[in-house]
Amino acid sequence: MSLDFTHVTLGQRVLFGAGKAAEHVAAEVARLGTKKVMVIADERELELAHEVANLIDVATWHTEVVMHVPIEVAQRARRVASDNAIDLMVSVGGGSTTGLAKAIALTSGIPIIAVPTTYAGSEATNVWGLTENERKTTGTDDKVLPLTVIYDSELTLSLPVAMSVASGLNGLAHCVDSLWGPKADPINAALAAEGIHALNQGLPMIVEDPSSIEGRDLALYGAYLSAVSFSSAGSGIHHKLCHILGGTFNLPHAQTHAAVLPYVLAFNAPHAPEAETRMAAAFGADTALAGLQRLRTLLDAPRALADYGFTAEGIPTVVEQALAIIPDNNPCEVTADNLTELLTAALNGEDPASIGQHIPAATAAHV
Amino acid sequence: MSLDFTHVTLGQRVLFGAGKAAEHVAAEVARLGTKKVMVIADERELELAHEVANLIDVATWHTEVVMHVPIEVAQRARRVASDNAIDLMVSVGGGSTTGLAKAIALTSGIPIIAVPTTYAGSEATNVWGLTENERKTTGTDDKVLPLTVIYDSELTLSLPVAMSVASGLNGLAHCVDSLWGPKADPINAALAAEGIHALNQGLPMIVEDPSSIEGRDLALYGAYLSAVSFSSAGSGIHHKLCHILGGTFNLPHAQTHAAVLPYVLAFNAPHAPEAETRMAAAFGADTALAGLQRLRTLLDAPRALADYGFTAEGIPTVVEQALAIIPDNNPCEVTADNLTELLTAALNGEDPASIGQHIPAATAAHV
Repeated sequence: MSLDFTHVTLGQRVLFGAGKAAEHVAAEVARLGTKKVMVIADERELELAHEVANLIDVATWHTEVVMHVPIEVAQRARRVASDNAIDLMVSVGGGSTTGLAKAIALTSGIPIIAVPTTYAGSEATNVWGLTENERKTTGTDDKVLPLTVIYDSELTLSLPVAMSVASGLNGLAHCVDSLWGPKADPINAALAAEGIHALNQGLPMIVEDPSSIEGRDLALYGAYLSAVSFSSAGSGIHHKLCHILGGTFNLPHAQTHAAVLPYVLAFNAPHAPEAETRMAAAFGADTALAGLQRLRTLLDAPRALADYGFTAEGIPTVVEQALAIIPDNNPCEVTADNLTELLTAALNGEDPASIGQHIPAATAAHV
Repeated sequence: MSLDFTHVTLGQRVLFGAGKAAEHVAAEVARLGTKKVMVIADERELELAHEVANLIDVATWHTEVVMHVPIEVAQRARRVASDNAIDLMVSVGGGSTTGLAKAIALTSGIPIIAVPTTYAGSEATNVWGLTENERKTTGTDDKVLPLTVIYDSELTLSLPVAMSVASGLNGLAHCVDSLWGPKADPINAALAAEGIHALNQGLPMIVEDPSSIEGRDLALYGAYLSAVSFSSAGSGIHHKLCHILGGTFNLPHAQTHAAVLPYVLAFNAPHAPEAETRMAAAFGADTALAGLQRLRTLLDAPRALADYGFTAEGIPTVVEQALAIIPDNNPCEVTADNLTELLTAALNGEDPASIGQHIPAATAAHV
């Protein structure tokens, strides 16, 4: 097998350090020599943002943060930035906060220092999103990629355990899916495996002790790697299925991802020996599936789509939509029959080991 | 253990594809929309460079490539670039060729597409070097980082097996040393482990069949990863020792690296459990040392420094110089005694398993 791929590495400074956000922000502001800083934070995280910006001069605080970045909200924020001659943004928060900073950067080119407080991962990508008339537009532009990301796991201590686990499993799904996404390549795969390793170690520590800095560090690190690898590899079969389940059937995002992942893994892994080897090693288990299931047991993860309102009647619709959008490079060929089997097993929470074994490999298995 | 590090990811496009260099170069030139391309290649690689630039318009060919980039050579090349209003360079060659393109970029900011024909790795770093009055000055500047790297393992087929192995083992030493270099971090480590994995697979294939595209691909990929991880982590104990052995005792570069590596590994690994686990997994062996020794046997790698003219009388000098420059974060404490033991074993080609076991861990083991 020869190597044939294009990988785009996005240039960023990534700083890790529990309890060091304020110090790291000040060092970056000094390094960049910027003069007028705008701090962006949701009203509910304003106190946290004040701590993070404790050692710098702030020209403007901006707190109008709204999910999915409505265009009006972005336009108001852009005006504030331009009226105040802002030359650097510091965003403190989750995906919506980072998203607003990106919306400003998209039209102004003002650089961003991102200080994430969740596992959303947006800080590690050049993807922006804006919502107009309830339609979300997304795109990629290197201008929106934060120049520096400052990870401080102390800022994530208030993230409830259930949300940490759901969000962490979402990150895990990103890592797994990037092993067979449309632009999967070995560089993504190495980073995704590192992410699986970190999440597999960190999430159980958080369940055992929500104040564990080691667990929070590992989860945050894993979430970063999941964003890096997934944004490079693109959506594979797992995200295509979950997107339909969420969009057409309104199933809850995190639970859907958590419930579907073992079935996708069982479905693809026998036909993706390199991915299987990487995942098994990352989980420290004999097989990738055994590793994932051990982790899911420790985390008491969602099991069956039936528990979230999905029913067998929905399966043909998902199958039909999925057949049109699952990437061609998926390691095994997808058919109406085998997707129905996958979804039926996920609906009922059956043992995932029962599926996948008899599915023939795709003609040109990629991973 | 909590995560505490700064990692700088250098943004680049990396294209892999055996036999695709010309196609990839043309696609990149089209994507960038540049008009006046200067191709830089050593006279001896001019034919190869013509093939690589087969599908693009070339404004200027420049073939004055000299090792270590003498300043006069750089100045002449800069003048050629400016006289011809060059807006893109395509460098085809090894470290000296990439180095000349970097010297031009340093003062002009003209972007570089690097097409490496060896495992030198310079194409993946922002390090430049210039020689004036026999003194080499080096520095880092993001302007010299090639925008795109195009790897085509067919271009490396003419690299003799012995040189491929020596250069590949040098890459392996970079990967290993980046696990405990002064700026070692888990992101470097994940990429370094991927590099070890690739070189461990690829180099024996080249020995068995020098025309193996799979082997050449893996070696090139491993060399790329070794450059990425090493330039980020910085020189650890291995490179400090080899630098002294080469500089003060004029020992041959590649052979010195190959002979010293197992001793450094045996010395440090017992005190760097995470690095040991990563390396063992990457080698697919029970221990990192077992994996390295298996590879060295397959490659018939250099064994004893005595074979290259080093003698026991040199050891105290190396020890004295090394004690001053080995990074403080080395996983075990270095002393005159244990360095003497390491160097004596390397001098005589003793079993490396005999050293390291009884050396106490440093107070703050880092890796």
